[in-house]
Amino acid sequence: NIRNLSMEKLANSLKFPCKYSNNGCCETLSHDKKYEHEDVCEFRPYNCPCPGASCKWQGSLDQVMPHLVQQHKSITTLQGEDIVFLATDITLPGAVDWVMMQSCFGYNFMLVLEKQEKHENYQQFFAVVQLIGTRKQAEQFAYRLELNGQRRRLTWEATPRSIHDGVQQAITNCDCLVFDTATAQLFADSGNLGINVTISLI
Amino acid sequence: NIRNLSMEKLANSLKFPCKYSNNGCCETLSHDKKYEHEDVCEFRPYNCPCPGASCKWQGSLDQVMPHLVQQHKSITTLQGEDIVFLATDITLPGAVDWVMMQSCFGYNFMLVLEKQEKHENYQQFFAVVQLIGTRKQAEQFAYRLELNGQRRRLTWEATPRSIHDGVQQAITNCDCLVFDTATAQLFADSGNLGINVTISLI
Ligand SMILES: [Zn+2]
Ligand SMILES: [Zn+2]
Ligand SMILES: [Zn+2]
Ligand SMILES: [Zn+2]
Repeated sequence: NIRNLSMEKLANSLKFPCKYSNNGCCETLSHDKKYEHEDVCEFRPYNCPCPGASCKWQGSLDQVMPHLVQQHKSITTLQGEDIVFLATDITLPGAVDWVMMQSCFGYNFMLVLEKQEKHENYQQFFAVVQLIGTRKQAEQFAYRLELNGQRRRLTWEATPRSIHDGVQQAITNCDCLVFDTATAQLFADSGNLGINVTISLI
Repeated sequence: NIRNLSMEKLANSLKFPCKYSNNGCCETLSHDKKYEHEDVCEFRPYNCPCPGASCKWQGSLDQVMPHLVQQHKSITTLQGEDIVFLATDITLPGAVDWVMMQSCFGYNFMLVLEKQEKHENYQQFFAVVQLIGTRKQAEQFAYRLELNGQRRRLTWEATPRSIHDGVQQAITNCDCLVFDTATAQLFADSGNLGINVTISLI
């Protein structure tokens, strides 16, 4: 036991470079901190931020917008801090994603509305905003999603996700705007749902 | 066919008193309008507004508050337009109701938080406000329910229900604040959930 303890001490005194050192990370860390760091390392390649697992692209942060513009041409971009994200045909069956870009404060935000059947025979909508940027950059902002109906309003306010983390975890944890098809009907107009999106600096 | 048509015309020309005429309703209506009216008649006895079906009391509107004070002594009342509805032990298993009264603008409002398993193995919370009053009185008001967490806020704004209609239909239709246990955890503190409730005149 004494021998194991000193071996551990020795192992922890050794420093290893982060696995993303080739991408520019200069961190060297003890063995037990290395994996923790690599999970949050800013030099880790970014995945394509489009929801669903269909696009396998990875690259650096500054390549993300060129990738979206070239490979995901169908995504609309609106300019301004306060826009309407219009999701059409929300009654379509099955799992569906609606995606839009919002450009303001010199940054690009991706708005995602996802319809999923997490629980059997119970479809829900999940709406969330992610910044094309790092976690630190995302923390400077707040977003508000608002459904407006006749004498009814449902609002969710939070910090945008960074595309470093993506939106799936927020959807899994219900850390986003969550509503079901009955609620959607209260706010939809001929099967189309308008979500007011406001980005602000905090 | 001609004979049937004239029989129908005759039947519809006859007027019947509302079944709540003994309670003060002076309406007389054709047969086909009578049932429609009786469903919304203001002289229809009110059910006890407490959620759940345990109390079978019925009575006129002005007897509702005395009934609550005498038979539902455990319900707390807070004064003011802007209060905190604190639901304790929200992680308790099973279907649970939390109830509070809010008194403002000379009216009494009942705040209801209900935990239900509408869908198998999926517990949800439903929060809604009902006025101890008629539909017309309820339409003068708006209520706002707000969950506040760390850099997160979930808000629902709507017209209070009248206890004439009760809260069950709103819960069934998700026409209220709906959130699940994962979302509740984001806003709860040691298993207690504070809901900010604001009533306003519109
Ligand atoms: Zn690194
Ligand atoms: Zn892609
Ligand atoms: Zn009547
Ligand atoms: Zn009762």
